[in-house]
Amino acid sequence: MRAFQDFYPEHLAHCYGCGSLNEHGYRIKTFWDDEESVTHFTPALFHTAVPGIVYGGLLASLIDCHSTGTAAAAMYRDEGREMDSLPPFRFVTGSLEVTYLKPTSLGPQLEIRGRVQEIMGRKVVVASTVQVDDVVTVRGLVVAFQMPEDFGA
Amino acid sequence: MRAFQDFYPEHLAHCYGCGSLNEHGYRIKTFWDDEESVTHFTPALFHTAVPGIVYGGLLASLIDCHSTGTAAAAMYRDEGREMDSLPPFRFVTGSLEVTYLKPTSLGPQLEIRGRVQEIMGRKVVVASTVQVDDVVTVRGLVVAFQMPEDFGA
Repeated sequence: MRAFQDFYPEHLAHCYGCGSLNEHGYRIKTFWDDEESVTHFTPALFHTAVPGIVYGGLLASLIDCHSTGTAAAAMYRDEGREMDSLPPFRFVTGSLEVTYLKPTSLGPQLEIRGRVQEIMGRKVVVASTVQVDDVVTVRGLVVAFQMPEDFGA
Repeated sequence: MRAFQDFYPEHLAHCYGCGSLNEHGYRIKTFWDDEESVTHFTPALFHTAVPGIVYGGLLASLIDCHSTGTAAAAMYRDEGREMDSLPPFRFVTGSLEVTYLKPTSLGPQLEIRGRVQEIMGRKVVVASTVQVDDVVTVRGLVVAFQMPEDFGA
């Protein structure tokens, strides 16, 4: 099964978090699970805050890319379009809120789950959680916007 | 001059963002500039969102560690203590808000500036900006808490 990120056009597939062409990056893969989107990711041992705990910046990064990917997938779904249809949807982050509820153990695979809260014009709001060993340790909220045509130009 | 992070005790100096002992990490260095704290950081070329633009997760990560470092330094200052006095202050992030105002050009050195908004008990609130070429591209707000004694235990 192809992940959301596998549909990104080549020139937009270099993101450190989710670009399949960034060999230094996280290359996350996100899928639908009914109404939720799901990403699994296992941090490296050096992605640490204090020993044994996952680095908060990585958690923020995972929420960020998980959410922009979910925003794009949600927009395709909302418009009844396949993800390989043109023109492609890609989203950028307008704002990112992360609440660290408790330390996230470093070692096990993490599960990031997202739920679309709102689609309004070019804006999509995605609420997410990070779980480790079935315990929610982090909550995220991302306001994503459809990427302007001239983004980065 | 020693940076805030150079005063972290050895067992707390492994953070991917700011630990001097994490050879894979960013190893940011933060200093006072009057009432503001300042971190300079030059991203690698692979820290990209779309080509030419800095990855948002990196920007969130830099704001995060810049702010927890600032929180610790502010607490020492508030108590009239030197940063090498004991017991050491270290902070963890309770919440992180990042607003992406415009794309951040990839290539030049970034400047992260922080200002302490509030110190209340074990909580410190730090507002930050990221600038590139003297233009503010990102705003951050971190609520940091003094690290519990058993954090990660």
